[in-house]
Amino acid sequence: MNAPDNFVQLLARTRESFPASTKSYITGSRADLRVPVRDIQLTNGEVVSVYDTSGPYTDPTATIDVKKGLESVRAAWIAERGDTEQYEGRKPVALDDGSKSEDAVRLAQLRQEAAALQRQPRRARAGGNVTQMHYARKGIVTPEMEYVALRENGKREWMEQYMQDAAREKRLAGNPMGAMIPKVITPEFVRDEVARGRAIIPANINHPEVEPMAIGRNFLVKINANIGNSAVTSSIEEEVEKLVWAIRWGADNVMDLSTGKNIHTTRDWIVRNSPVPIGTVPIYQALEKVGGIAEDLTWEIFRDTLIEQAEQGVDYFTIHAGVRLAYIHLTAARRTGIVSRGGSIMAKWCMAHHKESFLYEHFEDICDIMKTYDVAFSLGDGLRPGCASDANDEAQFAELHTLGELTQIAWKHDVQTMIEGPGHVPMHMVQANMTEQLKTCHEAPFYTLGPLTIDIAPGYDHIASAIGAAMIGWFGTAMLCYVTPKEHLGLPDRDDVKQGIIAYKIAAHAADVAKGHPGARARDDALSQARFDFRWQDQFNLGLDPETAQEYHDETLPKDAAKVAHFCSMCGPKFCSMKITQEVREFAAAKGVAEAEALAEGMATKAEEFNRAGGEFYIPIHKA
Amino acid sequence: MNAPDNFVQLLARTRESFPASTKSYITGSRADLRVPVRDIQLTNGEVVSVYDTSGPYTDPTATIDVKKGLESVRAAWIAERGDTEQYEGRKPVALDDGSKSEDAVRLAQLRQEAAALQRQPRRARAGGNVTQMHYARKGIVTPEMEYVALRENGKREWMEQYMQDAAREKRLAGNPMGAMIPKVITPEFVRDEVARGRAIIPANINHPEVEPMAIGRNFLVKINANIGNSAVTSSIEEEVEKLVWAIRWGADNVMDLSTGKNIHTTRDWIVRNSPVPIGTVPIYQALEKVGGIAEDLTWEIFRDTLIEQAEQGVDYFTIHAGVRLAYIHLTAARRTGIVSRGGSIMAKWCMAHHKESFLYEHFEDICDIMKTYDVAFSLGDGLRPGCASDANDEAQFAELHTLGELTQIAWKHDVQTMIEGPGHVPMHMVQANMTEQLKTCHEAPFYTLGPLTIDIAPGYDHIASAIGAAMIGWFGTAMLCYVTPKEHLGLPDRDDVKQGIIAYKIAAHAADVAKGHPGARARDDALSQARFDFRWQDQFNLGLDPETAQEYHDETLPKDAAKVAHFCSMCGPKFCSMKITQEVREFAAAKGVAEAEALAEGMATKAEEFNRAGGEFYIPIHKA
Repeated sequence: MNAPDNFVQLLARTRESFPASTKSYITGSRADLRVPVRDIQLTNGEVVSVYDTSGPYTDPTATIDVKKGLESVRAAWIAERGDTEQYEGRKPVALDDGSKSEDAVRLAQLRQEAAALQRQPRRARAGGNVTQMHYARKGIVTPEMEYVALRENGKREWMEQYMQDAAREKRLAGNPMGAMIPKVITPEFVRDEVARGRAIIPANINHPEVEPMAIGRNFLVKINANIGNSAVTSSIEEEVEKLVWAIRWGADNVMDLSTGKNIHTTRDWIVRNSPVPIGTVPIYQALEKVGGIAEDLTWEIFRDTLIEQAEQGVDYFTIHAGVRLAYIHLTAARRTGIVSRGGSIMAKWCMAHHKESFLYEHFEDICDIMKTYDVAFSLGDGLRPGCASDANDEAQFAELHTLGELTQIAWKHDVQTMIEGPGHVPMHMVQANMTEQLKTCHEAPFYTLGPLTIDIAPGYDHIASAIGAAMIGWFGTAMLCYVTPKEHLGLPDRDDVKQGIIAYKIAAHAADVAKGHPGARARDDALSQARFDFRWQDQFNLGLDPETAQEYHDETLPKDAAKVAHFCSMCGPKFCSMKITQEVREFAAAKGVAEAEALAEGMATKAEEFNRAGGEFYIPIHKA
Repeated sequence: MNAPDNFVQLLARTRESFPASTKSYITGSRADLRVPVRDIQLTNGEVVSVYDTSGPYTDPTATIDVKKGLESVRAAWIAERGDTEQYEGRKPVALDDGSKSEDAVRLAQLRQEAAALQRQPRRARAGGNVTQMHYARKGIVTPEMEYVALRENGKREWMEQYMQDAAREKRLAGNPMGAMIPKVITPEFVRDEVARGRAIIPANINHPEVEPMAIGRNFLVKINANIGNSAVTSSIEEEVEKLVWAIRWGADNVMDLSTGKNIHTTRDWIVRNSPVPIGTVPIYQALEKVGGIAEDLTWEIFRDTLIEQAEQGVDYFTIHAGVRLAYIHLTAARRTGIVSRGGSIMAKWCMAHHKESFLYEHFEDICDIMKTYDVAFSLGDGLRPGCASDANDEAQFAELHTLGELTQIAWKHDVQTMIEGPGHVPMHMVQANMTEQLKTCHEAPFYTLGPLTIDIAPGYDHIASAIGAAMIGWFGTAMLCYVTPKEHLGLPDRDDVKQGIIAYKIAAHAADVAKGHPGARARDDALSQARFDFRWQDQFNLGLDPETAQEYHDETLPKDAAKVAHFCSMCGPKFCSMKITQEVREFAAAKGVAEAEALAEGMATKAEEFNRAGGEFYIPIHKA
């Protein structure tokens, strides 16, 4: 089987539903506002409905042709606003695919494959501003905002039976650490959060295929997965398969970090086929255009790259505008100096020219581009710590303060903004980092890479960082950028991507539960209830990775009968504590609450009765 | 290859050294007090020395014969104290290996194999007390205490260059959360901690093979791995291989949770070949003796089992004496009731007899046994929560309070005691749990299972729980019981055991770093320095799992040349941020500190010089 065929097959597989799951939609105030959820059918008749990032790929009624791209969710909404215009757009040049594309024939072929993915770009009318923040501040609730509200709520009905105890018992209410998550998210709430800059909805007007989502501390904690860096052998199918694989497991956002050849064409494939927002680091492409020589970068080349990518539909740009000339020497005494690629490129540029960063100096020019297409800022942390002993140091916080200043400039232009954060931070410094960001950056959403809590776990950095990610998510970080087991060692393969995403779904969910999100713990409760009821299949299906859970179970108890067994392989039938508990409970229930309470004082009679009844209080769950 | 041969081969493999590592010993005040460490030779000439739990198995000079057991580390120390006597001991009976050993021939064969592992037991002379706590309270510093002090310190010299910054910079000093870890651990400090009950040294006088270690919040955070539950096909080699595998990866303690057949004989194999303390849950064996019928348990059978196991050399017993009759009804309204096996056995017993738990009622009788052999209590949390929504509830805390009372009774007898903890606890409740334990149990060491921060990750519960474990370790938990990826699903295999241990080494180390342990971060710094210097091999070898790290690296850059390359596969040679930083630093260093600082104000001259020099400031690291 050749590689492309292989990816076509993999892509077909990633279109399969999760076990016992059905794609369904919550319809909003207009027929074309349909928010996807995944309904999991349980064996006891309940339906548990969960947030779904997988896009139309898991909708069996959707026709997918990756060479044509996805259908547009937002096209009508954008058109109706009447504040944009289509235009010819920037003329693609050979250099867009890098200076090193020695194989012109291959490139021509790749571009030919992507021919049907070309779109005429759209921009704000002259002097206009088409950001979600701009609308929000004018008091307009956009369909994107309503979509986000419906999506954050999901189908709340099923959650209620599980979440009632949180209202009664303080211990279950969570500790929001300053977040203010309402019981029900209204479109107006979304608007307000976006208006004040506390949340963003990354949604470039040239990416109408995106299913809107919010990043903000008063919403569910989101995760980002990185793809890209593909070899020259990649095809549309291969790139799209990586993307679809990532969103299948729950990536809310995907960054395309390609640095090699064919970078422009690859991006066409990714954006046109992505239902989640796509972020990039435009300096990577700009550097390719100048043959990899940082000193040769110019504002003009960078600006042209921003427009190129904005026209393609990239939803947010990482811009390392906080790496200022004056901060570079602060990294000289560090153990691991500058570890951000973008940061080190800019540091090298500043050093070579002995000039202030052109990103910093042209920041308002960049804002003009951002608001013309509604690209959000992801202000890069070019000076983030690369090891435990560099954490929270002067260089890191100096840059963070600058990012706070830049946030206010961006907001002056109504440009949506989030702030990138570390990196490597021991547990005892995580909260200080979050506090500093909230204070310095005026609650603009924080978007952190981990952080890794220790440095001695190469091969397991998804775990070392999931600890820090869960904590900083609880403390207020809005989006967690995943780390794979290959971090620091090599390029992640398909399984590494999955491992990284699952570790980060765990971290994000742990944060939601700790914050007391009004629906988060419901899924845990539904799964634990299934576990307690010996509904094995439901336990698998409610988990983050049903296949693996079932596979692990089947290794020791492979028979189908074991899936309904009232015990498991760990303890066997006689030793099952859950079974014994059920017996205790059935006994108590059969006797009524009053008597159950009387157990505390004295239960001689009951014990006698029990013994007379044969000393076994087992009543099959499914009987009567 | 048949199964036993396979395990003999595996066992041989687990005797191999870690890469670039040498076993060495720190000698104490007497020649027979030799504390093992693992010295890692770095390519730059440095030697990094780390805590070593792997015992004589990784000492190439040691002769190992698993059919005879390990050499005794402590035999002379115990004998010299002159307060014990050898005696005939309890006579083994067929029932010791369970009531269901239908295959008498097989059992006879297994016992025959273990014949050379039999020892005449030792006990305190009549009326005596041989616990480390008893000695400590009399002001005696035992060799075990000195051993622990040397072991906790390790070779501090190499750490100093890395830890100097912690003294200078508050952010790196850690936040001990109430722990008081001195810069250097003295034998007297160990004595004092053991005397006040804040640490234990599990070391049964019938387990002289044990290499002493301490469990306490003012020491390094420890981890426990569970083994056991083996099928009837197991051999000495197989059981010992599991144990050796667990300690190779860093298990500080191992619990033998066997519940099936041949339980007594299996324990002989494990204890005689273990350099780490072995814990058990004696109620499991007692239940086997009564054919698995909880109601048929009696104090006499239980007592006999304790003596049987104490004579074999078990170092700590999990005793669920806090599951009192009056608390059982508190679990009736829980989502998942009682999830502890021991807890549910005792609950069933109490319900059936309508009597207070015989463990609670005979607690002082149990103390008498414990002090005769120096077995430590691990007071079981039979009512721990089994899901997020049962966390920190009335049942859990009612039992915890009883465990606090029992601790004081145990201490009255100078019996070493630790307290078991959950289980399932969302992040925002972790600290409350720790605080409650410290207050209620008078700082007796806390020993928690995880806790799992969410319930929706079957197949990945080692990660879901490593988050909670790292946090509770930071807050003061002394030992973390590992969770494997198979938790809730099936029996862990060899790889699952390793995955669980690595996840927990990460959690424990993250806690040590956050607490500001005076040597913990040094290893991170050494690894990060190696990473920054492109010493790939050192980076692998300083990690928790050198093999996996190297394997991951080699997947993308397999050539030997790449191991010394000044770049890696993630970014390639042109894009390496570490390389660029090094350039920045070399440049700054070459110009002197004064000029480097001047960069902040203005560096026109330097930039000019730099450009004249050709615009490249790369100086090979190993040149000059």
